Amino acid sequence: MNEKNVPVGVSARHIHLTEEHIAILFGSGYELNVLKPLSQPGQFAAEETVAVIGPKGRFDKVRILGPARKASQLEISKTDSFQLGVRPPVRESGSIDNTPGITIQGPAGEVVLERGVIVAARHIHFHTKEAAEWGIEDKQLLRVRVQGERPLVFEDVIARVSDQFALDMHIDTDEANAAGVASGDTAVILDK
Amino acid sequence: MNEKNVPVGVSARHIHLTEEHIAILFGSGYELNVLKPLSQPGQFAAEETVAVIGPKGRFDKVRILGPARKASQLEISKTDSFQLGVRPPVRESGSIDNTPGITIQGPAGEVVLERGVIVAARHIHFHTKEAAEWGIEDKQLLRVRVQGERPLVFEDVIARVSDQFALDMHIDTDEANAAGVASGDTAVILDK
Repeated sequence: MNEKNVPVGVSARHIHLTEEHIAILFGSGYELNVLKPLSQPGQFAAEETVAVIGPKGRFDKVRILGPARKASQLEISKTDSFQLGVRPPVRESGSIDNTPGITIQGPAGEVVLERGVIVAARHIHFHTKEAAEWGIEDKQLLRVRVQGERPLVFEDVIARVSDQFALDMHIDTDEANAAGVASGDTAVILDK
Repeated sequence: MNEKNVPVGVSARHIHLTEEHIAILFGSGYELNVLKPLSQPGQFAAEETVAVIGPKGRFDKVRILGPARKASQLEISKTDSFQLGVRPPVRESGSIDNTPGITIQGPAGEVVLERGVIVAARHIHFHTKEAAEWGIEDKQLLRVRVQGERPLVFEDVIARVSDQFALDMHIDTDEANAAGVASGDTAVILDK
């Protein structure tokens, strides 16, 4: 039997910014510099970082992920959320209605984001071809076993299928630490 | 069918101290004051806190849990460990051979602990009577489902059985945040 093995990618806190916010934070016409490409085609970690400031605390050097998006969005762990003093819901990327805001500081200016702070819902990116081979549909909720130092089975792992995606399971640092795994470890989809 | 329901108790970072270390940190003959009793009979959160300092960072106000023990032990999450700059293993309480040390500061003095920093292995305390009714043995590894905002199944949950224990599942903040649960929520043992 072929196991449905998926590489694990651990997302530390990071931020996506609009072109407009990049201009405010770094200066008009500023373009992000690529530090390294990410697992999803076209996505990259930028050299640039910003500070984010909540009611109870701040994080300096929050990594920007590029390219620019239509809405700015800060993705943090629940642990981070207590330190900042915000209460973001667990959401899919891009789903930012009724989420808390945050203050963002860059070298050239400050943005008071009215909404956009989320804890990212764990998910797996599938290329259309793999999803078809494995019988997995977009939006399907999966059970996924992670055999780390602290083995566990994540439930409600959202399948996201696109011909623009590369196979990768995205979890946050709380989830990685609870399982005792790191980026590059392997998870196994338990659904038949 | 009766479900084996267990209340969840989330352990934030905390420290257990010896009488000798309490004397150094707070002064000779000092006795800890009870802030509130814990779920396990005789155990309590003390009013007193200490600072702990690692190679990369520090935490002020780490809660002391009493009463005094035979060996001092700092229990932190993996998230905490990165902030302090130490690499503690996942261990059962009391199992501190080959664990990193830490510096502890109190109002009256400082202790350089040579070993004793652990990430606590998740476990369930059972009273002997419940364990017998449910057919669970001391040291047994259990599968436990937590139905929080982010449902998951913890594996390798250690059963600890004693007539001195009260039923409670202890997980750390990374595990609680990964599952989206808090103290007082309910977990279900899946083993028959």
